[in-house]
Amino acid sequence: MADPSRLERLRGLLAEGGHAAMYVSDLVNLRYLTGFTGSNGAALVPTEGEPLFLTDGRYRDQAAAELDAAGLGDVEIVITRDLIGVAAGRAPADLVAETHLLDVDSWQRLDRPEASGRLVERLREVKDETEVAALRRACEISCEALEALLVGPLVGRTEREVARDLEWRMLELGAEDKAFDTILASGEHTAIPHHSPTDRELRAGDLLKIDFGARFDGYHADCTRTVVLGPAADWQREIHAAVRESQAAGLDRLRPDVPVADANTAARASLEASGWIDAFTTGLGHGVGLQIHEDPFIGSAHPGRLVSRTVLTMEPGIYLPGRGGVRIEDTVLVTDPDHGGEPDVLTDLTKELLEID
Amino acid sequence: MADPSRLERLRGLLAEGGHAAMYVSDLVNLRYLTGFTGSNGAALVPTEGEPLFLTDGRYRDQAAAELDAAGLGDVEIVITRDLIGVAAGRAPADLVAETHLLDVDSWQRLDRPEASGRLVERLREVKDETEVAALRRACEISCEALEALLVGPLVGRTEREVARDLEWRMLELGAEDKAFDTILASGEHTAIPHHSPTDRELRAGDLLKIDFGARFDGYHADCTRTVVLGPAADWQREIHAAVRESQAAGLDRLRPDVPVADANTAARASLEASGWIDAFTTGLGHGVGLQIHEDPFIGSAHPGRLVSRTVLTMEPGIYLPGRGGVRIEDTVLVTDPDHGGEPDVLTDLTKELLEID
Repeated sequence: MADPSRLERLRGLLAEGGHAAMYVSDLVNLRYLTGFTGSNGAALVPTEGEPLFLTDGRYRDQAAAELDAAGLGDVEIVITRDLIGVAAGRAPADLVAETHLLDVDSWQRLDRPEASGRLVERLREVKDETEVAALRRACEISCEALEALLVGPLVGRTEREVARDLEWRMLELGAEDKAFDTILASGEHTAIPHHSPTDRELRAGDLLKIDFGARFDGYHADCTRTVVLGPAADWQREIHAAVRESQAAGLDRLRPDVPVADANTAARASLEASGWIDAFTTGLGHGVGLQIHEDPFIGSAHPGRLVSRTVLTMEPGIYLPGRGGVRIEDTVLVTDPDHGGEPDVLTDLTKELLEID
Repeated sequence: MADPSRLERLRGLLAEGGHAAMYVSDLVNLRYLTGFTGSNGAALVPTEGEPLFLTDGRYRDQAAAELDAAGLGDVEIVITRDLIGVAAGRAPADLVAETHLLDVDSWQRLDRPEASGRLVERLREVKDETEVAALRRACEISCEALEALLVGPLVGRTEREVARDLEWRMLELGAEDKAFDTILASGEHTAIPHHSPTDRELRAGDLLKIDFGARFDGYHADCTRTVVLGPAADWQREIHAAVRESQAAGLDRLRPDVPVADANTAARASLEASGWIDAFTTGLGHGVGLQIHEDPFIGSAHPGRLVSRTVLTMEPGIYLPGRGGVRIEDTVLVTDPDHGGEPDVLTDLTKELLEID
């Protein structure tokens, strides 16, 4: 849950940058800072002095309750249909705004504030205890649902039916929603990294790739397992083993103070060694939290180092068009150095190649 | 399904406005014009000459297939991670863009195009046959699911359970997803216009308000019915009858060439006559299509007239804080004058006050 320290840290960043105030209107950033979960709102956050919260009449009671729960009960709430107009009238001249997200018309009405950069996104990279707890619960629900699903039998059901079954199980276990539309692919469809479930029936001999997750209290789980229906063929075993090895190599680099690019180097080196690197065509991983994809993104170009309490995915894969593919993905917490710095895999499910009926 | 006539009509509007080209990057507008359903793409639409479609490598095959299905197989597709960079290099100087939606950073990289206004949104107000068919199917699924749910029994189950049950039924009937998170409220919760389902158990004597819908092929249904659990009390009958009368008065104005504001006037006049106008605190209705809320919005300030094949909601309500509330909402097609211009109610469900076990 949001608490006043988040706003304080934002003010610290604003002071560092020499800015007088920030206009925050992205709803994810706004939720992070204030706890507000409505569909229309904004905050004017001065570096010194009291913030101002703006929303419309639909959210009068909800905004008051949510800000109060976040320890921001003293923040002034303005109810208006013209958020931008009110904010423009109350904002200092040297305002910054989320120009990577804010629409041009609103920006012009605010008298063209400077870019803030991804200030709130930067704060969101490092999770606090409430956030880690929500992510952990989202991952637990996801794992429990998949384990129950994989008891089977699955052969003879369609991709769509099985995907819906999994999503239903997550809701029954306490998810507030699915984290995203389940990517469930069987047979040759597993070669497509982001496949939407179809009416194809699952058959013995198929690979079955399931990329899914639960959302809990706004936080997203992201997990992929690939299993085989019936006894695995040699080629299926081979690519599964290669992905598993690559994933382990990448996972092992998710430690505090290690360059973010190292995980990319390690996971790709493993696929190079096994000869499958050309069949890996997607990104390797991304931050996850209030959004399913957020900073940091793992890649060779990332200049930074990993920080404790960052939560990321690690998801190498092998995709063989017309034949099939394997992906293994976990949601992982970068732990504190004084806990040994071992990566904490929140999606705690076996990575053996399961053979399901 | 998108077809080339949509792009042609956009070009007509661009020519009228004296513009050389438009950059379209809003994903809903892009889907409307090109059929593309991915999460990253844009189109550069010149008033004369061939359009350009931009997306990244994840959507290479999907974009080709979807544009082909929309009769746009000849459109050049550029695969790039830098949509804006490529578009900026190929755009004419007098470009327009969706400045009400486009982020400031992208706009600056495009060399600050002029505002297009809501050009594509204006096209989207009038539905073609495929769109009407998809909306009709979404509404049919919604109605069938609610009728099955209301067979009951409902008393003793929680709001959350019943909401999930309804959503599950829509999926089973062929919905691709829920159109939005179901607003299901019981007892005193019905006084909250936009209530999220809780663990409150449904009790005899409760009002039960269900605002829900299915999504089918990208199109949204939006429907609300309010029922009572067990025999209705007099006050429940009274406010239900007042809302029903107001809704009928508003519905009757959803005819071609009638001022949009008329429906607002008529529905509100009815609530004034019955003495409940002060308890009606929300908007009266909105367009619905590829988005759950889209143009036109019904209100006293709307300057235009209704056009055939516009699809709107009509949703008056009475909300009595701490006590309860009633809303009745339909998704309605404005028909052609040569079919008598009678409003075509797509959410064809009874508006009697049902008493459910």
